[in-house]
Amino acid sequence: MAHKTEIIAVGTEILLGNIANTDAQFLSRELSALGIGVYWHTVVGDNPIRLREAVELARQRADIIITTGGLGPTYDDLTKQTICEVFDRPLERHQDVVENLRIFYRESLHREMPENNCRQADLPVDCTVFDNAVGTAPGCAFESGGVHVLMLPGPPFECETMFRRCAAPYLRALSDEVIVSHDIMCFGIGESSVEQLLHDKMVVMENPSLATYAKPSEVRLCATARAHTVEDAEAMLKPVMEEAMVLLGDYAYGVDVSGLPETCLKLLKEKDLTFTSAESCTGGEIARQITELPGASAVYRGGVVSYWSEVKHGVLGVSQELLDAYGAVSEPVARAMAEGARAVTGAELAVSVTGVAGPDSDERGNPVGLVFVGLAAPEGTFCRKLELGRRRRDRIRGVSTNHAFDMLRRYLTGLNPEAM
Amino acid sequence: MAHKTEIIAVGTEILLGNIANTDAQFLSRELSALGIGVYWHTVVGDNPIRLREAVELARQRADIIITTGGLGPTYDDLTKQTICEVFDRPLERHQDVVENLRIFYRESLHREMPENNCRQADLPVDCTVFDNAVGTAPGCAFESGGVHVLMLPGPPFECETMFRRCAAPYLRALSDEVIVSHDIMCFGIGESSVEQLLHDKMVVMENPSLATYAKPSEVRLCATARAHTVEDAEAMLKPVMEEAMVLLGDYAYGVDVSGLPETCLKLLKEKDLTFTSAESCTGGEIARQITELPGASAVYRGGVVSYWSEVKHGVLGVSQELLDAYGAVSEPVARAMAEGARAVTGAELAVSVTGVAGPDSDERGNPVGLVFVGLAAPEGTFCRKLELGRRRRDRIRGVSTNHAFDMLRRYLTGLNPEAM
Repeated sequence: MAHKTEIIAVGTEILLGNIANTDAQFLSRELSALGIGVYWHTVVGDNPIRLREAVELARQRADIIITTGGLGPTYDDLTKQTICEVFDRPLERHQDVVENLRIFYRESLHREMPENNCRQADLPVDCTVFDNAVGTAPGCAFESGGVHVLMLPGPPFECETMFRRCAAPYLRALSDEVIVSHDIMCFGIGESSVEQLLHDKMVVMENPSLATYAKPSEVRLCATARAHTVEDAEAMLKPVMEEAMVLLGDYAYGVDVSGLPETCLKLLKEKDLTFTSAESCTGGEIARQITELPGASAVYRGGVVSYWSEVKHGVLGVSQELLDAYGAVSEPVARAMAEGARAVTGAELAVSVTGVAGPDSDERGNPVGLVFVGLAAPEGTFCRKLELGRRRRDRIRGVSTNHAFDMLRRYLTGLNPEAM
Repeated sequence: MAHKTEIIAVGTEILLGNIANTDAQFLSRELSALGIGVYWHTVVGDNPIRLREAVELARQRADIIITTGGLGPTYDDLTKQTICEVFDRPLERHQDVVENLRIFYRESLHREMPENNCRQADLPVDCTVFDNAVGTAPGCAFESGGVHVLMLPGPPFECETMFRRCAAPYLRALSDEVIVSHDIMCFGIGESSVEQLLHDKMVVMENPSLATYAKPSEVRLCATARAHTVEDAEAMLKPVMEEAMVLLGDYAYGVDVSGLPETCLKLLKEKDLTFTSAESCTGGEIARQITELPGASAVYRGGVVSYWSEVKHGVLGVSQELLDAYGAVSEPVARAMAEGARAVTGAELAVSVTGVAGPDSDERGNPVGLVFVGLAAPEGTFCRKLELGRRRRDRIRGVSTNHAFDMLRRYLTGLNPEAM
């Protein structure tokens, strides 16, 4: 049976716009991957009447209800009480949960638990308890009249962790099918071109299915199969994945990776190489993206943000003659920045970016969106010229950063780094 | 009369988790600022039955309904038709809108408009048309039986632009009151401490009101007043703001600024000073945050991401003896990094960060969350030691970055940069 899910977020801070409902986004993506359809998102504040109405409505139209938020120990945390009223199921105190809370306070927070926290151990009778491995409020699930109710905490890290550890296995057990999916990540090709390519060349069915999702300047191609076992699903996916990878060719940069930085990290580790960065208009974005990944220190030595020409000259050793003759936003300077970064850090490889991120043209009249991306390697130096047009400053910085990582991964896989 | 607003987002891509419902967040924040209460967020897919049910429900419980999405020219864009059915109000083609669409295609997209785009000019009879200054689909608003319905496009930039230009004036006209609010931004004090301080010392009323919002390691205190004119509201806010600023003292770093980097940018410009950064565990986050702001090049010369000790030594000139004696994560190295960055870039001021962002302790056994933040100035060098504990990597990087900017703003306002 196909499930109909409603996600109810409980929290006045969402209705005030202080935070986005990212829990609903996370859960929707995970539920899609499990093959469970999400039909409604609802947000209500910490208000018992409107929460009750929302739960009553959800009970009528959905057969899986997932709530986020309102599980804490304070008076405005109403989710459990309200749901128990609607489903006519009393709360009971779970002494083992109380003990776990005491231990969490003592060992992780280094203090005694305030007694009002015991309220967090009050859970519906006859429920499955979801331990909170990264916080205090436990979640839970129960079934009533064919409707499954799952309650998860609101803080995103707690919600995500509890979903992966407890809620996903609970939901998987509701179905005799498994869903397996893999993402093929592409750079340098638009979403409509990917769709056209697949449409023209492949007979794609319902199961396994292929779907494209556009990220800024990237495309994620998601291949999904349903079967009775993971092995069967993987066997169904294998030929589809292989055919898609051949069609996408050099545009496909990785399978099941978070992005180009992760692909570069893996390739550099395999080849035991290190890199550095020299950034002007991206202002540290390349450095930030690679160092965001645990283990980056194995491959990234560090880099230079050379915003002023004085820093390009003084720290990276870009010659003043070059800066005077061509200006900071030029191919010769991009090349010299990469070569300089390589020399001063001792890394085998270096990427560089210099360009105009806007909002205004530079003092030489170079237009917003003109960017040069360099790559210095033992074999020589490569350069891409980008004309990104008048986009938002953060977009220009983001796309330029992607190009720097793309040059790196092309070099590391034996492709021409300048091709795009 | 206090309004009750429901925001209905129409889009299967939200239910699949491909995007977060950021339009609802934006609109909620803007509506709060207008003094209009948001009671519900609802998301449904591009499905006429469920959209119809959602609109019928909203009509019963809300008196302002704002929809986002589903205004485009394709078959799955159903918002206008569905709403017109529920409110029994026919669509009619607006010829002036057709002409505007043709002009937009010709002048902005440099091609002729495909004829199916005329559907975008079909709007409810007797409505207020909202021009789309940055896209093709116009929005609209009408009133029916005391309920105001506003339809906005889904793409965030179009939604935000149309709200500011068209929907906000429409909503403001529904009230004879204006709402004015100002944000006092604080760093170094927790949300509950701010609340306690205000509770103990100030008699805060309904109008003007004070509300606190926690951001990671920061608190935003929002003061809001309702009055018949902006001048009256500002006059009501003035004494409240002044009293709160005195109570918050050095914790308050700015009014109506986006964050510490913007405050530092302003202060540096006023004093005609420049700064640089030397980053280890923050990996370029300081550089990224300052260069994200237009005009950063006036005050930020650039910086060094010294991930490896070789870069700390070779580029920043941190002595090998110091690195050997104390290790990279130490106060002497944080100081030497800031001093080195100042020397190699020629900036008047330099901030530095070295620490353990995790997930593991460093090779000397320093725990995750131990971070040293330095500030080098002409008068000498300052340092803060942070013990942030086992938090997520991105949190440790974020809080450390905030401390670097906080040291800078304390120095620039004549306070002790080491105090926190």
